[in-house]
Amino acid sequence: MDRVFNFNPGPSTLPVEALEKAAKDLVNYQGSGMSIMEHSHRGKEYEAVHNGAIALIKELYNIPENFDVLFIQGGASLQFAMIPMCFLRDGKKALYVNSGTWSKKAIKEAKIQGKNIEVIATSEDTNFDRIPEIPEIKDTGDIDYVYITANNTIFGTEYHKLPETNGIPLVIDASSDALSKPVDWKNIGVLFAGAQKNIGPSGVTVAIVRKDLYERENDKIPTMLRYSTFAENNSLYNTPPTWSIYMVNLVMDWVKNTIGGLEKMAERNQKKAALVYDVIDSSNGFYKGHAQKDSRSLMNITFTLGKDDAEGTLSKKFIEEAKAAGLYGLKGHRSVGGMRASTYNAMPVEGCEKLAAFMKDFAKANS
Amino acid sequence: MDRVFNFNPGPSTLPVEALEKAAKDLVNYQGSGMSIMEHSHRGKEYEAVHNGAIALIKELYNIPENFDVLFIQGGASLQFAMIPMCFLRDGKKALYVNSGTWSKKAIKEAKIQGKNIEVIATSEDTNFDRIPEIPEIKDTGDIDYVYITANNTIFGTEYHKLPETNGIPLVIDASSDALSKPVDWKNIGVLFAGAQKNIGPSGVTVAIVRKDLYERENDKIPTMLRYSTFAENNSLYNTPPTWSIYMVNLVMDWVKNTIGGLEKMAERNQKKAALVYDVIDSSNGFYKGHAQKDSRSLMNITFTLGKDDAEGTLSKKFIEEAKAAGLYGLKGHRSVGGMRASTYNAMPVEGCEKLAAFMKDFAKANS
Repeated sequence: MDRVFNFNPGPSTLPVEALEKAAKDLVNYQGSGMSIMEHSHRGKEYEAVHNGAIALIKELYNIPENFDVLFIQGGASLQFAMIPMCFLRDGKKALYVNSGTWSKKAIKEAKIQGKNIEVIATSEDTNFDRIPEIPEIKDTGDIDYVYITANNTIFGTEYHKLPETNGIPLVIDASSDALSKPVDWKNIGVLFAGAQKNIGPSGVTVAIVRKDLYERENDKIPTMLRYSTFAENNSLYNTPPTWSIYMVNLVMDWVKNTIGGLEKMAERNQKKAALVYDVIDSSNGFYKGHAQKDSRSLMNITFTLGKDDAEGTLSKKFIEEAKAAGLYGLKGHRSVGGMRASTYNAMPVEGCEKLAAFMKDFAKANS
Repeated sequence: MDRVFNFNPGPSTLPVEALEKAAKDLVNYQGSGMSIMEHSHRGKEYEAVHNGAIALIKELYNIPENFDVLFIQGGASLQFAMIPMCFLRDGKKALYVNSGTWSKKAIKEAKIQGKNIEVIATSEDTNFDRIPEIPEIKDTGDIDYVYITANNTIFGTEYHKLPETNGIPLVIDASSDALSKPVDWKNIGVLFAGAQKNIGPSGVTVAIVRKDLYERENDKIPTMLRYSTFAENNSLYNTPPTWSIYMVNLVMDWVKNTIGGLEKMAERNQKKAALVYDVIDSSNGFYKGHAQKDSRSLMNITFTLGKDDAEGTLSKKFIEEAKAAGLYGLKGHRSVGGMRASTYNAMPVEGCEKLAAFMKDFAKANS
C-alpha cells in the first residue's frame, strides 16, 4: 500500500521529506561510517544535530534570549509533575484552567505533591466544548504561575488568544499546537510540548523555560527532575534520546525551508482546518462540530453525525469508508465519540481537501 | 566511507541487520501506509512491536512470571531517583556498593531525597580498578534492598557473580551488561538498563521489576515516577518512545534469531574480550589493563600505554591510527585515561580480531 493520509492524534503524521532523509541516512549517517543512533552523544556529528534542532526551534519560534530550549524525556505527563515540583514553592499557589483531560491530569499531579492550587475556570459542565472564560488575573504576590492547556486534543478546542496574566509566569502545555503558529512570549514562563504531534516522533519533550525560574528549584528535587540540570548541561546531563532529537531537527528544517516559517505554517493550518469546518457548517446538521465556534482547534477537528444511533453505526461506516479512501486515524476519542481529524503541521493541504470531498460525498450518500 | 567498527561506550554499535530492516521500513512500515513513528501507540501495528519486544526480553532473559518488563524514559539517571523514591521506605535502609561513577550518582540521588542508605563496600581507594569485596549480608529486617552497578562502563569492571543477599531484593543497574549473558533471578528485585549499549538506541530504559515491590510505593509519588503506573498500563500510560522500542524489538530479534540466545551471546562476548585482553597480557607491559584480572569487564576493556607521557601523546597516536584503520570510538574516559574498547553485544567478532591485530602491530612499531 502507498502512504496514506494519516489523521492520527499523536503519534501523528510526519513530513515525508524528513522520513525519506532519515531512511536514506539510517545505516550510515552522512557517510560517517555509522548510524546517527550509534554516534556518541558527545561527538561532533550528534552535537551538530542537537544544537541544530535547538537553534531551529529558537529561530522559528522567535524565542527571546532569556529562555532555554530543553530536551527532556517522559512526555507531557512528566511535565505535569515537574512543573509544580520545580516552580510552585511552599507558601505560594498556582492558578489552573481546566479545559479538558490533560488539564485535569496536570491538576491531579500538582495535588499529589500537596501543592496549593486553585482552579480558576473550567468548561467541564459542557463536556469541554470551549475554552472557558478566564476571570481577570491580578498579581496578589502569592501566585507562582498560571497554567493552561493551549490545545485540547481530545475535545478539539484551542486558545486563540493567551490569557493576560499581568506579569505572572504563564505555563503552557502546548503539546498539540506547539510551532503551529507564532507565539507572543510576553507573559510566558514555560511552554512545553511532547514532540509527537507537531515537532517530531515520540520520545522527547521540548520545554522552553524562562531562565529566572530555575532559582525556585530546591535541593530536595532529584537531579533529573530539575529543569536547571537540563539547562546547565545543554540537555546532555545524561544520554538524550538522540534519534528523536535527530528527527526533530529534520522536521524543524522542513518547517523552515519547505514551509517557510511559522507565519506560513499558521496560514496553511488555517486553510486546512477551514476546508473541514466549512463542510461541517454547510452540512445542514449532518455533521455536528463538538467545539463551540470561537474555541475551535486548528489541530484537532472533532465532530459527530447528527443522525447517528447510540451505537455509532453511521460513524463506524464513515471511518471504514474513509479508510478505504486512504484517510486514516479518524476515529474520535471515547469522551466525545464520532470522529476526530487531527490536522497537525505535517498534514498536507491535499489531505484536508480529500477529507472535505469525502465528507461531502458521505453526507450526500447518507442523508 | 563504509561502515566502521564502532567501539563507542554508548550510544554504541547496533546490529547492521537491524539497521537495514529499520531503514527499509522507515517511510512505510510493512506496507501499512505510514512510518512506525507515525502509528498510534494504541494501534495494532505498534502494539505488536511493543508486546513483541517485551516477549523477546522475557524469553531471552528467562524472566520468571513474578516480574514485569517495563519501558520507562529518562535513562539510568532517572532510575537512580525512582529506585529509592519507590522502593526505600521511611524507617528502612538500603545498602549500596560503590564501584564507580554510576554507583556514586545513584548514592547521591538517594541522599538528595533524605533516604537512609549505607555504603557497604567501595573500591574508590584504587580508582575503581575492581569490584569491591562485599561483606556478608544478613537480613536484619530493616534493609529494603541491596544496590549494585553490574558493569562499570568507565572503569571496565564487572561482577562475574552476583552478591548473595539472602532474600533481600537486589537492585542492579545493568545498563552496560544487560542481556550480554544469562542472569540468575533468585535474589533480584529490580534489574534496569538504559537501552543504548546492548538493547537498542537511547531513549528507552528497560526496568525488570519483581511485582511484590510495587506495594512499597506511596501515594505522594508522582504518577510518572511510580513503577506501578508502567506495570498497570503495560508501559502505555502515556505515549512511549515508540521508535526506540521498535529498535529494541529488532535488536532482540537479532539476539534470538541471528546469535541464538544469551548462552551463545555470552560465549561470543567472552571470545571477543579475550582477543583484546590476550594482547594486553602478552604485551610485556606495553599495554596496561586498568581493571584487576578477576574484575575485568567483558563489555568495556580499559587500558593505558606503559610508556606514554603525561600528555598522553602515544595514546593520541594510537587513537588516530586506529581510526585510520576503521576502528572508532577508542578514546578512554578522562577518569582512567588511555583507551577503552567497548565490545557490547552488537560488536562483531571480526571487530575485536581487527582491533587485536592493530594493537599487536602498534606495539611492535612503538616499542
